[in-house]
Amino acid sequence: MNYLKDTNPGKLLEEIKTKTPLVWNISNFVSMDIAANMLLALGASPAMAHALEEAEDFSNICKAINGALTINIGTFDNHWKNCAIKIAKQANLNNIPWVLDPVGAGASKFRNENAKQLLSLKPTVLRGNASEIISISGIKSSGKGVDSTSTSNDALDAATSIAKSEKIIVAITGEVDYVTDGSKIYAVYGGNEMMTKITATGCALTCLIGAGLTSEQNNLISTANIMGIYSVACEKALISSKGPASLRSELIDTIYNLTPAEVEKNIKIELI
Amino acid sequence: MNYLKDTNPGKLLEEIKTKTPLVWNISNFVSMDIAANMLLALGASPAMAHALEEAEDFSNICKAINGALTINIGTFDNHWKNCAIKIAKQANLNNIPWVLDPVGAGASKFRNENAKQLLSLKPTVLRGNASEIISISGIKSSGKGVDSTSTSNDALDAATSIAKSEKIIVAITGEVDYVTDGSKIYAVYGGNEMMTKITATGCALTCLIGAGLTSEQNNLISTANIMGIYSVACEKALISSKGPASLRSELIDTIYNLTPAEVEKNIKIELI
Amino acid sequence: MNYLKDTNPGKLLEEIKTKTPLVWNISNFVSMDIAANMLLALGASPAMAHALEEAEDFSNICKAINGALTINIGTFDNHWKNCAIKIAKQANLNNIPWVLDPVGAGASKFRNENAKQLLSLKPTVLRGNASEIISISGIKSSGKGVDSTSTSNDALDAATSIAKSEKIIVAITGEVDYVTDGSKIYAVYGGNEMMTKITATGCALTCLIGAGLTSEQNNLISTANIMGIYSVACEKALISSKGPASLRSELIDTIYNLTPAEVEKNIKIELI
Repeated sequence: MNYLKDTNPGKLLEEIKTKTPLVWNISNFVSMDIAANMLLALGASPAMAHALEEAEDFSNICKAINGALTINIGTFDNHWKNCAIKIAKQANLNNIPWVLDPVGAGASKFRNENAKQLLSLKPTVLRGNASEIISISGIKSSGKGVDSTSTSNDALDAATSIAKSEKIIVAITGEVDYVTDGSKIYAVYGGNEMMTKITATGCALTCLIGAGLTSEQNNLISTANIMGIYSVACEKALISSKGPASLRSELIDTIYNLTPAEVEKNIKIELI
Repeated sequence: MNYLKDTNPGKLLEEIKTKTPLVWNISNFVSMDIAANMLLALGASPAMAHALEEAEDFSNICKAINGALTINIGTFDNHWKNCAIKIAKQANLNNIPWVLDPVGAGASKFRNENAKQLLSLKPTVLRGNASEIISISGIKSSGKGVDSTSTSNDALDAATSIAKSEKIIVAITGEVDYVTDGSKIYAVYGGNEMMTKITATGCALTCLIGAGLTSEQNNLISTANIMGIYSVACEKALISSKGPASLRSELIDTIYNLTPAEVEKNIKIELI
Repeated sequence: MNYLKDTNPGKLLEEIKTKTPLVWNISNFVSMDIAANMLLALGASPAMAHALEEAEDFSNICKAINGALTINIGTFDNHWKNCAIKIAKQANLNNIPWVLDPVGAGASKFRNENAKQLLSLKPTVLRGNASEIISISGIKSSGKGVDSTSTSNDALDAATSIAKSEKIIVAITGEVDYVTDGSKIYAVYGGNEMMTKITATGCALTCLIGAGLTSEQNNLISTANIMGIYSVACEKALISSKGPASLRSELIDTIYNLTPAEVEKNIKIELI
């Protein structure tokens, strides 16, 4: 394949490590630990603050120092959902880029509604697995709980359709990752199947995409680059892993030690 | 000792890896990460969804695809407790097998009440440490917070009494594990003391027992097998562990890599 | 430097491992797992119980068996805050020593208020990073979200001032750690910068300080010793770490295996 040489993933990595951008996360109970640790490993500064009582203050900090926001619906109830909606609205008022992770969309009416309501607030990027993206697009989902049972390829039409109608970026993760703004589509290769045996690796990627949105790169390119960097790290981490727990540990260590040169050499992004 | 050769633990492991059954967990804030990762390592598909707003939908999915439910009272307040009770009732309506983990029963009146109310809804399996099971049975507990200060042997009479009166399966974990339906009692050997130095290993086992309940084996046998499989994995994981954190990582990797043949060879279950 | 030889850190470690004291934690969603695991590794018995419904019972247990309490505001909303205030009041009634961790003080008005209200209830020890301590003292903070952007040296005046006015112990962690009762100041050396790339290592230290408060040592000395023990463990753990995830694992294993003799030999505490 003809992998792109001009997306400058090494430059993005360097920018994040230098600027340590604030990424404010409304994450879920399961993913908070791994997400915060991955953001730290990448070089970002995570804030895990979900309370309505401080939404305005964190929004103002984010605006002042060019941070990003991520919202993950994974363990929402009505209280959390209402916080998230208010926070997303304030992010929009403050022009803060944000990523929506619609965990388990398709598994319950409540998740579907949460995903749709947040989507209507125009996240900068929507990132999900194939089942979630298909479900959001209105096509019948085959999700089972929160794990995807569709391939990312199946979901590409759904992603393009959402990207066009909502005028946002949509990223699908799976065997091959895709990211599109409705017009261009990037495919990102790499990663490994054992990643699906670690909980919340998708949620963590959502947060890393948030870090990318704080950079000088355009949002479509930075999202493709973050997905590519993650895949490079996964492939390297797998070499010395014996199972999902050691892979999780190796992955974080690898992200921490990753050099721009390594990323530039191994990243596999294609314009399709 | 004359270990049983006819409980087919290897077959159970294979069935779980093949079917990737859904295990829906109302777990606690501390155990969510390790529980989800252990379920994935075993081959199951965890869903960590506790919201009242989606209880009916997840219950219907569980019913449709023969999943199981686990309820862990470890970090309940009234809101979580009320969700759990409604969810348990729906599980019963849908004939979904479920496991109750009465974390810290005996430590507070609130926990005692939660444990008793949920117990009255007839979980398929009740799984606790010795202090918790003794406390639930009405005998004076010597628990200190959430760690057990009684041995599993002390709790055997309590377990049998609960199993008989409630007509459920009761599993006690400790130096030796026991599981009984009030008539038969299986003892499960193995494991290691360092496991008590990792938080939420009991909670995670509860979730794995949930995976066992989705299988074709009868619930008493599958619970004994899961406890035995866990002990086999613990013993193997200990060999290359330097302390509780590496043991946790090794344990997950070991469960992921465990073969039916290894399990059949090393499991130590006895009918007493 | 003339490191102190008379703070008996080895004796403290031995006392904790022998007594396995109860440490009751109102921690945050991100730190629960690592905090519980570190307490277990040190030899303490963690209870992660935050519900208002059982505050009185846990307070009574803590009193009866000489446990300690820690309160961490990291993921508070109004509900959690109100629980914490009630719990702190009950701890005071029962003479239970407690540690306050004002995570992210300075980042939002809500956090500032929570920190101040809890501080007014006179924790035994206040433990924060430089930004947090400076913010609480009323000096303008330069915190960015929850990570410190000030050095612990900057915060020393702030710490002394709070310790004097509130008549409590104040501990600052950073490149050098300090702990003071407003009159004596101990400096604690060691640790390593990679620790700042693991989420919740400060929160976990707060819980370990709680374990120290249950000992026979006076609270100022035990706090300095716990900080010194943590630094010794960090330095040792770093040797075989490849990044923040392996450091986290090594750190827990190292704390578990640490001997009194090792601690006595390597701890670096100075009276300044």
